Amino acid sequence: MRYAVLGTGIVGRTVAAKLTSLGHEVVIGTRRPEATLARTEPDFLGNPPFVTWHADHPAVPLRTFAEAAAFGETVVNTTAGAAALDALASAGSPNLAGKVLIDIANPLDFSAGMPPSLSPVSTDSLGEQIQRAFPETKVVKTLNTMPCRIMIEPGRVAGAHDVFVSGEDTDAKKHVTELLLSFGWPEGAIVDLGGIDTARGTEMLFPLGWSLMGALGHGDFNYRVQGAR
Amino acid sequence: MRYAVLGTGIVGRTVAAKLTSLGHEVVIGTRRPEATLARTEPDFLGNPPFVTWHADHPAVPLRTFAEAAAFGETVVNTTAGAAALDALASAGSPNLAGKVLIDIANPLDFSAGMPPSLSPVSTDSLGEQIQRAFPETKVVKTLNTMPCRIMIEPGRVAGAHDVFVSGEDTDAKKHVTELLLSFGWPEGAIVDLGGIDTARGTEMLFPLGWSLMGALGHGDFNYRVQGAR
Repeated sequence: MRYAVLGTGIVGRTVAAKLTSLGHEVVIGTRRPEATLARTEPDFLGNPPFVTWHADHPAVPLRTFAEAAAFGETVVNTTAGAAALDALASAGSPNLAGKVLIDIANPLDFSAGMPPSLSPVSTDSLGEQIQRAFPETKVVKTLNTMPCRIMIEPGRVAGAHDVFVSGEDTDAKKHVTELLLSFGWPEGAIVDLGGIDTARGTEMLFPLGWSLMGALGHGDFNYRVQGAR
Repeated sequence: MRYAVLGTGIVGRTVAAKLTSLGHEVVIGTRRPEATLARTEPDFLGNPPFVTWHADHPAVPLRTFAEAAAFGETVVNTTAGAAALDALASAGSPNLAGKVLIDIANPLDFSAGMPPSLSPVSTDSLGEQIQRAFPETKVVKTLNTMPCRIMIEPGRVAGAHDVFVSGEDTDAKKHVTELLLSFGWPEGAIVDLGGIDTARGTEMLFPLGWSLMGALGHGDFNYRVQGAR
């Protein structure tokens, strides 16, 4: 299948590489490809620049948001949450209409430093904002509750642990569930929370994860919902 | 030990009964004891009135917030989150000073109907608000991430699952950890998240729990953090 991965950060790179390894055709989207490729310094979180990754994955084209979205049959949003609506507007409604949009972004607000807060939060979510802005697109929120290395390799956390799915469209959620299965998620670990408004709860898991990272001293953890299902 | 349980709702009743069954002396605090005892209708969530419970637990006195707090060596806050700071002000700083205050409340805002939103959220928490308002009190946030029947009977959820602890004072957290052990929590299930600011993350778990209750069709679940610890 043809995938557009919007965003050139660590999450986008990791998901794009996984999709490629599974035989999908992938194009990565960014605002200005030349600018992204021109950056040679690590970002403010210390991640290496995109070019470093791209040198190892030369078969994955980097295009504008609009070009990538036009190419993809399914679109994956991995942009920084605060910039996601702008990025998707730049991708263009016609290039997103009728498609499944997998939203992995969290609406992190770094304006007051670390740790980031969430905006929107509690009475709204980024997932809902995107669904409202692109009513012809089938938004499915998933995978946003864990580091990207676990998204595409759930086996690196021992024991059963879960991934949540939120969205309005049943077929879109089925499509995403199949993708998650292909990523290595067991069927029993995929929890359909309901409509896109349930993205509030998964986005709001971020602060607990931040605290746990400090308490445990690492980020290789994930959550299991214990109880009858 | 002498415990004050502030709040006459389901959480307060459940915790008070458990503390009594463990041999502690418990006094429940409310704003106006006569008014609480005069209520004979279920509350807006359908819970039976306090008098029904009190008839089965006549040995647990109902007093004002201030009288209860003066009695308790440890104070447990189970009041409705939106009313917690008022209730604690009514309990009185001198009656709380130097004591451990176990805060189980979530700052739920029902003003826009169901589901409730959280206020404060993301950039602050009820736990922090209480700690700031009562600097002489050792606030420990815990147990706020699950229904009260699981708080005092963790065995009703099969499999390993966790309870989080947040607070500034190490000895206070030790005291709370011992209480949790006496409630039936295994030592390995008690996760110290760090300072009281980590209460943000546990309070923000509420919306996910709400969605899961809908998705699973029951509330007998809890979270396990999977990963090395």
